[in-house]
Amino acid sequence: MEGESLRRARLDGEVRADNPYSRLMALKRMGVVADYERIREICVCIVGVGGVGSVAAEMLTRCGVGKLILFDYDKVELANMNRLFFRPEQSGLSKVDAAVQTLKNINPDVQFEAYNYDVTLMANFEHFIGRIEHGGLKSDAPSNDESAESNSRVDLVLSCVDNFAARNAINAACNELGQIWMESGVSEDAVSGHIQLMIPGKLACFACAPPLVVASEIDEKTLKREGVCAASLPTTMGIVAGMLVQNTLKLLLQFGHVSDYLGYSAMTDFFPTMTLRPNPQCSDRHCVKQQAAYKATEHERQAAAALRDRLAAEAKLAEEQQPLHEENEWGICVEDSSESHGAAAPSNAQTSTQQSANLVAPGLRFAYDAPPPDADAHTTASAPSAAKASDADELSDLMAQLKGL
Amino acid sequence: MEGESLRRARLDGEVRADNPYSRLMALKRMGVVADYERIREICVCIVGVGGVGSVAAEMLTRCGVGKLILFDYDKVELANMNRLFFRPEQSGLSKVDAAVQTLKNINPDVQFEAYNYDVTLMANFEHFIGRIEHGGLKSDAPSNDESAESNSRVDLVLSCVDNFAARNAINAACNELGQIWMESGVSEDAVSGHIQLMIPGKLACFACAPPLVVASEIDEKTLKREGVCAASLPTTMGIVAGMLVQNTLKLLLQFGHVSDYLGYSAMTDFFPTMTLRPNPQCSDRHCVKQQAAYKATEHERQAAAALRDRLAAEAKLAEEQQPLHEENEWGICVEDSSESHGAAAPSNAQTSTQQSANLVAPGLRFAYDAPPPDADAHTTASAPSAAKASDADELSDLMAQLKGL
Repeated sequence: MEGESLRRARLDGEVRADNPYSRLMALKRMGVVADYERIREICVCIVGVGGVGSVAAEMLTRCGVGKLILFDYDKVELANMNRLFFRPEQSGLSKVDAAVQTLKNINPDVQFEAYNYDVTLMANFEHFIGRIEHGGLKSDAPSNDESAESNSRVDLVLSCVDNFAARNAINAACNELGQIWMESGVSEDAVSGHIQLMIPGKLACFACAPPLVVASEIDEKTLKREGVCAASLPTTMGIVAGMLVQNTLKLLLQFGHVSDYLGYSAMTDFFPTMTLRPNPQCSDRHCVKQQAAYKATEHERQAAAALRDRLAAEAKLAEEQQPLHEENEWGICVEDSSESHGAAAPSNAQTSTQQSANLVAPGLRFAYDAPPPDADAHTTASAPSAAKASDADELSDLMAQLKGL
Repeated sequence: MEGESLRRARLDGEVRADNPYSRLMALKRMGVVADYERIREICVCIVGVGGVGSVAAEMLTRCGVGKLILFDYDKVELANMNRLFFRPEQSGLSKVDAAVQTLKNINPDVQFEAYNYDVTLMANFEHFIGRIEHGGLKSDAPSNDESAESNSRVDLVLSCVDNFAARNAINAACNELGQIWMESGVSEDAVSGHIQLMIPGKLACFACAPPLVVASEIDEKTLKREGVCAASLPTTMGIVAGMLVQNTLKLLLQFGHVSDYLGYSAMTDFFPTMTLRPNPQCSDRHCVKQQAAYKATEHERQAAAALRDRLAAEAKLAEEQQPLHEENEWGICVEDSSESHGAAAPSNAQTSTQQSANLVAPGLRFAYDAPPPDADAHTTASAPSAAKASDADELSDLMAQLKGL
């Protein structure tokens, strides 16, 4: 218990050489992340602790994530040494044990749960889906089942596996639970990779547009040849892990834009983005169910988005009406060089009209006429000059009208 | 000596669990890199072993680079633990010592040289530039100076520093030597970064378009405030290190396209590329000298490029004339469904003419008429139908004429 409170207390922003969180808490001061401390409540599940998964786990550990749940059934080999993370002396250890050993040492504040098994085996599937459903850090999750564990589900599942069967297993579990996950992959020639966000019902799942091998139900193991291995590079895998965890942080700590799909082509330094919508004919029945559920709540989402837009517009307007610099210790002011005061006060409707009448250089004219100053604001709502609306109340009226259109 | 030969012998491509190079040598089999073994002869100098430099060093070490020369004057602190590489128990060690300790353990095949000093101090500059000039692995470098060390210069310098003074020092050294280097940087708010290739005389140097603080000769140390630190993230730094080393591998092992500049904006997953040409009014006199030297050899480069183009075109033509599949155990052949044999043999000039006369669907016509089969090849060289030229000798004639234009 004492250890626990010591742990949490360490997430402060003070700039000291012995504070491992000062550079992370600086994200708040710089205005990048509103609430960085929230990372302590986040639990991420990583399936596959190889070239991408191990680096993703290390990044999240160093960022101070609350908890990691790791799955892998492989052992560390010297043949893995061309990728980051594992060390030669860990050869022979299971990847999850070696990873937890290294990660706990790097950041003892993070909780770890590790499972050394193959998620594609039916015998393990119930346990696997159970850890996604109840492995989270919050214990206030509503539950209809009296016998269920009281903990909440994990916040995100990251797929860092190297085969289709494992992706299918993660996909099946997350579709059933409606659990958001991110997929990652690196090509066999080591020079391209991708990450993909999977929001059940909203975005394509792995079964919505499966690779040909999966769609043809060919056993991918039959495609491997004796004495031949895939190429890999620490660079490509490090970049893919970086893209994966960066988008994880953006999604869970709510900053920036989260990419639905982000590719990487090393040969040309090309990073394509795109969005894949779900397939109504998806072979996964849980995906089809999630699609229906997503459609059913479309109306609520639109209402929420409209509210968000209105609040943002109001906040923006309020901010624009604030002076740019609160303090003005040097007494700097904008000099009034025009007769009509137009340049310094564009939000005044009367001045705006004068602008349109008088302030045009020879040979130029305004594309639109401003309405006379006594015009009813409501009738001008959809005209391009509506931006001059002078107070927040008026703006919400306009927003309501726009929605009604 | 025995250790040395054991080291080199290990760079084999055999697929065994204990071969750390199998996944790298697979790059050859996959056709990505023609001569991966060349990495054993390469020496890279890394200035700054922090969030980017340490990860870059680890990536190159795991790739089996021949030698690394590291420069840093800083100590490992717990406040660095939010970035990859260093471990808490290394706190207090110099960054270069801690790095060599970790890297030697990861790959004992790599040679290391490490200097714990500040490259911006004049007292260190001569030594610094000397290690770039003579730190390389080849001992056959021609030298006019009898007293100079016999070793060649390093193959590449990577700048992974966090201040402008150090970039200026690296820039000055590399401009003086005509040494190719790559610059890297991460923003203070941790959500953007870049890498930039610097080829003295050909591309802009750091002084060609300096940041305002540098151009204004402001001491950047005066911009730092007590109790305030820059933000940093292992994701952004890992991605920038990955971009840096990926382009290092492409440049030194000659595959793919090397970016002149590659940016990364984490908020939007935007990766801009561009090319910065040198400034004829650059304040660095060595840069201006390198620009003149580069211009003086423009003619030779053009000739070399033309030769390269010709050889590539000849090789492509030869390849096109080869059957697509050497073996044809199923006896598959293209059926001849046209009267004039045109579809299966487009490289035959006579057939090509017949095509233009007979093989056009109703309502369509060829944009250009093919010349009659007995036309002099030389007079058709600049016509769009030149692509039908039927043998390699003819092509080199055409190339020579094109160059003469």
